[in-house]
Amino acid sequence: MLLVLKETISGGERDSLKARLASWGAVCAVLKLGGREAWSLQGGMPPVLDCDLLPGVERVIPPGESFFLASRSFHPASTQFSLGTAVAGGNRFLLAAGPCAVESQEQMAICAQAAKAAGAAILRGGSFKPRTSPYSFQGLGAKGLEIHRSAADSHGLLMMSEVLDRQDLPVVSEIADILQVGSRNMQNFPLLKALGQQKKPVLLKRGLAATREEFLLAAEYILAEGNERVMLCERGVRSFDPALRHTLDLGSVVLLKEMTHLPVLVDPSHAAGRRELVLPMARAAAAAGADGLMIEIHPDPANALSDGPQALLPGELATLRADLERILPVTGKSFGGQA
Amino acid sequence: MLLVLKETISGGERDSLKARLASWGAVCAVLKLGGREAWSLQGGMPPVLDCDLLPGVERVIPPGESFFLASRSFHPASTQFSLGTAVAGGNRFLLAAGPCAVESQEQMAICAQAAKAAGAAILRGGSFKPRTSPYSFQGLGAKGLEIHRSAADSHGLLMMSEVLDRQDLPVVSEIADILQVGSRNMQNFPLLKALGQQKKPVLLKRGLAATREEFLLAAEYILAEGNERVMLCERGVRSFDPALRHTLDLGSVVLLKEMTHLPVLVDPSHAAGRRELVLPMARAAAAAGADGLMIEIHPDPANALSDGPQALLPGELATLRADLERILPVTGKSFGGQA
Amino acid sequence: MLLVLKETISGGERDSLKARLASWGAVCAVLKLGGREAWSLQGGMPPVLDCDLLPGVERVIPPGESFFLASRSFHPASTQFSLGTAVAGGNRFLLAAGPCAVESQEQMAICAQAAKAAGAAILRGGSFKPRTSPYSFQGLGAKGLEIHRSAADSHGLLMMSEVLDRQDLPVVSEIADILQVGSRNMQNFPLLKALGQQKKPVLLKRGLAATREEFLLAAEYILAEGNERVMLCERGVRSFDPALRHTLDLGSVVLLKEMTHLPVLVDPSHAAGRRELVLPMARAAAAAGADGLMIEIHPDPANALSDGPQALLPGELATLRADLERILPVTGKSFGGQA
Amino acid sequence: MLLVLKETISGGERDSLKARLASWGAVCAVLKLGGREAWSLQGGMPPVLDCDLLPGVERVIPPGESFFLASRSFHPASTQFSLGTAVAGGNRFLLAAGPCAVESQEQMAICAQAAKAAGAAILRGGSFKPRTSPYSFQGLGAKGLEIHRSAADSHGLLMMSEVLDRQDLPVVSEIADILQVGSRNMQNFPLLKALGQQKKPVLLKRGLAATREEFLLAAEYILAEGNERVMLCERGVRSFDPALRHTLDLGSVVLLKEMTHLPVLVDPSHAAGRRELVLPMARAAAAAGADGLMIEIHPDPANALSDGPQALLPGELATLRADLERILPVTGKSFGGQA
Repeated sequence: MLLVLKETISGGERDSLKARLASWGAVCAVLKLGGREAWSLQGGMPPVLDCDLLPGVERVIPPGESFFLASRSFHPASTQFSLGTAVAGGNRFLLAAGPCAVESQEQMAICAQAAKAAGAAILRGGSFKPRTSPYSFQGLGAKGLEIHRSAADSHGLLMMSEVLDRQDLPVVSEIADILQVGSRNMQNFPLLKALGQQKKPVLLKRGLAATREEFLLAAEYILAEGNERVMLCERGVRSFDPALRHTLDLGSVVLLKEMTHLPVLVDPSHAAGRRELVLPMARAAAAAGADGLMIEIHPDPANALSDGPQALLPGELATLRADLERILPVTGKSFGGQA
Repeated sequence: MLLVLKETISGGERDSLKARLASWGAVCAVLKLGGREAWSLQGGMPPVLDCDLLPGVERVIPPGESFFLASRSFHPASTQFSLGTAVAGGNRFLLAAGPCAVESQEQMAICAQAAKAAGAAILRGGSFKPRTSPYSFQGLGAKGLEIHRSAADSHGLLMMSEVLDRQDLPVVSEIADILQVGSRNMQNFPLLKALGQQKKPVLLKRGLAATREEFLLAAEYILAEGNERVMLCERGVRSFDPALRHTLDLGSVVLLKEMTHLPVLVDPSHAAGRRELVLPMARAAAAAGADGLMIEIHPDPANALSDGPQALLPGELATLRADLERILPVTGKSFGGQA
Repeated sequence: MLLVLKETISGGERDSLKARLASWGAVCAVLKLGGREAWSLQGGMPPVLDCDLLPGVERVIPPGESFFLASRSFHPASTQFSLGTAVAGGNRFLLAAGPCAVESQEQMAICAQAAKAAGAAILRGGSFKPRTSPYSFQGLGAKGLEIHRSAADSHGLLMMSEVLDRQDLPVVSEIADILQVGSRNMQNFPLLKALGQQKKPVLLKRGLAATREEFLLAAEYILAEGNERVMLCERGVRSFDPALRHTLDLGSVVLLKEMTHLPVLVDPSHAAGRRELVLPMARAAAAAGADGLMIEIHPDPANALSDGPQALLPGELATLRADLERILPVTGKSFGGQA
Repeated sequence: MLLVLKETISGGERDSLKARLASWGAVCAVLKLGGREAWSLQGGMPPVLDCDLLPGVERVIPPGESFFLASRSFHPASTQFSLGTAVAGGNRFLLAAGPCAVESQEQMAICAQAAKAAGAAILRGGSFKPRTSPYSFQGLGAKGLEIHRSAADSHGLLMMSEVLDRQDLPVVSEIADILQVGSRNMQNFPLLKALGQQKKPVLLKRGLAATREEFLLAAEYILAEGNERVMLCERGVRSFDPALRHTLDLGSVVLLKEMTHLPVLVDPSHAAGRRELVLPMARAAAAAGADGLMIEIHPDPANALSDGPQALLPGELATLRADLERILPVTGKSFGGQA
């Protein structure tokens, strides 16, 4: 249970509140919730109604609701925030595009040009790659980050790159504009805390078998440390039919947007696993009300060092953009940089 | 492995083919595939290439492909067929609407009017209801079928009703225009065979944990008995997060349309379980390329005898229709009765 | 909510109870629960405590508990019942063995002999087979039932055979001792009702993606029609890793035995899909507290017409029996025919 | 594809091999496999048979097999290794017990005594806790490690503690005997690599939705860096029925032991989520052939700071030990310290 204190709470009210909680055996942890002081209670719980009547308490959040900062019930309006030249959330639709892995200057230049042409605001690309097998290409590391930065700058795009753990964070956060947390790392709690303690915005991908509550609690780790610029990203969950790589859970986009005020993007590329499925699933995500898309592209998918089969060709990204222009009005969203 | 014979195969070629297969130890079952004779081989397998060169054989279908009649690799063009006044498949988009359960004449009249106004071709409604609990409302039975027929006729709509088993089939198939098989019955094989032996078109819903191959093999049961008018319907699969009733697998719509030539509809109502999710998920299904939608509506959801929380109000169906008019052009589909 | 009436309820108490429920707006359906009259309430709910005090009411079952007859909270002692010469449930352990499909007299004779030698009480074997593909062997039908009966009789074994739907029930129930419902049919409600209206005991297998509550509600369909001899059978659920055919959910055995008083058997053969896994998983099921096992055996698995790879050889069944003799004492169970 | 070189390969054979691989366009990475040199090929693949005949090559491992060091096909005998005073793998059965979280000296003393009395070799306990919510107890950190060490030493037990990420590794590996990787961290690749580069043995828990191949590839990350003492631990996977916390996949124990030579332990406590289920599931794990168990105990579960409901009482651990003594002979395993 959480007690949100009134801004006007007096010292006397505060002492008297503490005394009464102590008399019930409740233990308090003090949190900041959107700039307000809140007391999280554990142990002996006071009756909700009594609590509500206590002087100095503005609001009681019942125990079932385990994430607070991420919850729409605490923050009813959709969050909208700036990402440098772009805007996330609200009535704006974000497009991020780029290869799975940064491979070369030439590859990144082609991708950046295609992304820009299709109206993307963000150039994605991994330099520290989480790979299932230790024998797979693990990314170019620091050298990849430089290539990525340069390609993004040349085309006026934001640079989004993945961080694998706390130890890599300084080197990536110094150079990238947006930090991505992959699905395998959704519950890497030391990383989440460290991301909350720095200022760059974060794109957090849903774990392969994470419930929506776990997903929002992972976001809560970042928010609770003071970083408010968190974007969520659906990317497919594990299901029982191996005919499709992952199951893209678009109902989850709708449900998450009920549960949280944070922007919810969709990555149809990893869910699909095959180029042919990406376009229709991207259209579906937009129609379901997503706040943006992250699309993998590659100039030469057959020779990609990672995840080639799911990469769109640059020309296909243009087709997607055209489709989105027709679908987005139905959901009240549009592309565009100013909030 | 399957050998599709040439239409012009001679008696001598046939005998010689049989002898050679026998020499390899292969056993043949004779099938009809879209009006053509095909031999299904089991036991000792001949090399594919040799087989291909055998006189009298037009085509060899490799062993991995377990469904033939439903497969797009055997029937590359999308199937389009007439449902009385409506058309299923190809470039046409079908809308079916109605309550979960037929409850009364008044209820069906309101639903039929709303369905017609929103451009639906089909009035759905269950009179034999499969209910998880024996203590839940089980449907009005034969009396419900009459009410349903009358409401459909009054508004020029097709009547679609669920059949629970082989024994109920005669009474439902005599009165309904389209026969629905529910997800719990997707592998009720005696029912599927019986549906293949009659002439009414069938809407087959995917089982809650059926792979796509099992789904298409269930359709194959109907097709193999000679009934070619089969529509598939995605309705959500079981997943690990109880926050959403079922996971609507829209990637599956795209994948199924690659795998099969049959029309693929989507039922977002059962997947969502809640009214608020139905509209965005219906839009997403259309954007993913579905051939139609089945939507539950109810004039008074709070007092529905079955599945009220997921039923749209009649007015919301009109909103959906307007959204679909904007999304469908992106997928090359449109409403309309003539093929 | 369910009100179980006292046996001694008087006419006056009954009238007064009805009146008070009506005053709260509650609607009653009258059920029989283990020979006792019970009223199921819908609509306006009375406070539980008040209800408990009403004259004529012995017990109140709260609304959350949706199955009554199958619930251990209503019937705390484990059910034990006779199956002809064998006993199911309580402290007895049942072994059923036999081939997936009845194929020939010779095959059934070998299986029956091996089953008897290993202490099995039941000879299983399918004559009406539910097969995923319409092109797979569908069983010998009525002729298979005769072969099965004769093999069981020659060795003093009980005959257990699967029923596919309501229409097949008379022919199977006339000849078999125990009727099996397969996992694909777990929610074939007309079949379940018909099984409740006849006298032969039923083995009900859990659906591939059925929750435990749905499983017990399926059993409730049979119980509610008056047939009390229902055995449940775990056989693996669908999960995300195709490396194993199904996931054998042994925690479910423990949980089901908390939830219900009915016997819970385990079929490790279908879950495993491969011979090598059957023995250790059978041992694990016994150690988890299962009330019995159903094991597939075949004298010549390589040439079995159905599910050969998962069939044990007759000699392996003897090994299993020896292992079980050592494990069962830990769970307080033993083989044996008398209750 | 992997070429394992002969120990006797000459310089000339090596050059000639390189040249022929280059002529096919294959690129080589050089690995150490169990002390032998192996070349991993990518790009243009030579025909397997030709390769096998090449001078200097002892063995060809086909491309499908993605983990080498962990694979039983490369290392047919079960691995057995020393853990200080205990032995893991082979015919020995390991018992680890202790609380979820280290809370106090008193708690650890009681747990250590109970663990020792029940024949456990390992005292588990977390000081760095991965918690779903940022508002839950996160562990005592370095102070917890000291308490843990002292309790283990007082009773002659090994100390096993969880490491959350690469940055925490030095502090934990300096004090603990065995390092645990939790299921949420199974694919924290930088951590896995770092664990491979130090000498302490590692217990790696399977991810909540990890396939067995992904699990073994995670182990491969550790092995490939040179640390051969890796134990695997099944702890339940995510499934669709919320009535059970996780599904303990015991078929996986059997399958993993076919796929790999590494020891496979089972943690029934986290899978069960409730005390009542732990004992029967622990017995089942032993009967399935597990190489050990990890059991949570707590002297006062009702007041545990983490996961109290699933902790056994110290006395229940003694019961488990007695049950295991009866079940283990069936699987050919026994408790005991010497290999």
